[in-house]
Amino acid sequence: MRFLVTNDDGIYAPGIRALAETLTKYGEVVVVAPNQERSGVGHAITVNRPLRINKAALFPFIKESYIVDGTPADCIKIAIEALNVDVDIIVSGINIGANLGTDVFYSGTVSAAIEGIFQGIPSIAVSLCTNPYDTDIFLDTATYYLTHLLFELETPLPKHGLLNVNIPGIPQEQVRGIKATKLGFRKFENEFEQRLDPRGKPYYWMKGIPLKPVFDKDDDHLAVEHNYVSVTPIKFDLTDYELLKKLKKDFE
Amino acid sequence: MRFLVTNDDGIYAPGIRALAETLTKYGEVVVVAPNQERSGVGHAITVNRPLRINKAALFPFIKESYIVDGTPADCIKIAIEALNVDVDIIVSGINIGANLGTDVFYSGTVSAAIEGIFQGIPSIAVSLCTNPYDTDIFLDTATYYLTHLLFELETPLPKHGLLNVNIPGIPQEQVRGIKATKLGFRKFENEFEQRLDPRGKPYYWMKGIPLKPVFDKDDDHLAVEHNYVSVTPIKFDLTDYELLKKLKKDFE
Repeated sequence: MRFLVTNDDGIYAPGIRALAETLTKYGEVVVVAPNQERSGVGHAITVNRPLRINKAALFPFIKESYIVDGTPADCIKIAIEALNVDVDIIVSGINIGANLGTDVFYSGTVSAAIEGIFQGIPSIAVSLCTNPYDTDIFLDTATYYLTHLLFELETPLPKHGLLNVNIPGIPQEQVRGIKATKLGFRKFENEFEQRLDPRGKPYYWMKGIPLKPVFDKDDDHLAVEHNYVSVTPIKFDLTDYELLKKLKKDFE
Repeated sequence: MRFLVTNDDGIYAPGIRALAETLTKYGEVVVVAPNQERSGVGHAITVNRPLRINKAALFPFIKESYIVDGTPADCIKIAIEALNVDVDIIVSGINIGANLGTDVFYSGTVSAAIEGIFQGIPSIAVSLCTNPYDTDIFLDTATYYLTHLLFELETPLPKHGLLNVNIPGIPQEQVRGIKATKLGFRKFENEFEQRLDPRGKPYYWMKGIPLKPVFDKDDDHLAVEHNYVSVTPIKFDLTDYELLKKLKKDFE
């Protein structure tokens, strides 16, 4: 099996290293990842300037890795269409921090996996629901459940789907199992904090304090809150078909 | 009626000026837009540095306009959550260039409208399907059909939906009507052109030559190709419910 690995925390992040190292046990791994943190970059692609690709000598345990001065979606495009990487499955992550509900729109990690599906390649986004500044980051829990999902299920995962996997940031033995979930809706409040620069001019930090979400029992955040691994199947058709039916009548 | 207007071509672009000027005939307009072109930026938000907001004196015909050194999604968040703009409807555009099918994932124009819906405000993305370097850019066609859709329909547009509107880049009298459409799938080929810098080191330009798409009769690009205005209702739930049903069984 040939794996293409990327992330949005940047090629130097511990999550992508743990992911690449784990996957070498199951096949060939190529890493193509951003040269710096690109969190919140969504499905941005770089069209107004050219991109640079540099060979990386960061991972002694794999043959090929590349640093790109672009976004996670750029990395997938470049890997497939410029570097011609031959790949069976794309894994994006392991992101340090949850990508739940509407987060997926802002997430470079999930967007890389969506780009993988656009390229016709089965793709998985993996996030560890933890804070980057926590003392203990349970990357082992993430790699354990990822390999379980990829290689040890009785019914194998769908070949052409896209999965958004969120893993609770707790020791492996505390995880209660795996749940198939849907994307929930989380809203953030009071998002901008105004500060003054030394010249007295204001600037604004986006904060993002999540409001307690309205729960549906199948929601992804609910599963993680209850210490389950959340697996959400995602598709990329945003059409609202119910509304389309109505509009078709209106415009006839 | 109070309108919030943004775009991804930047606050200096002709499209946003035409849009703001047109909407002043129907109500109050506030412009909050990026300080530079942010095409292809998708739903990126700025979390790793603070943002600046400057009052703009660009549009003599409206009371308030602001320049933000961020993305279109940042502009919507800042307008609502830092500037506390009171708004009935968000209009993003007029983008010079189509936003059809899977383009919506890369489009700053559409992402601003999706962000509007996250904020609970009805939102419309408007794109003129033309090349920025064409001699004639038919912005009049776009403003005509936008105001028609907003104010002159027998059945008013859904209050809480999000609409992605693409307008053919042709004179108004050549437009054949309006069609409700679904997002099609367009793939691009041969996306990276390698060039050498003066020191002989390669760099890569993303090109994006669209392949002839596989058509479904309701596709958005088909409508525009046939000189119709395309109106696609969009929702933001990316969950694949069919696959979810199957996975739920697998994980039980």
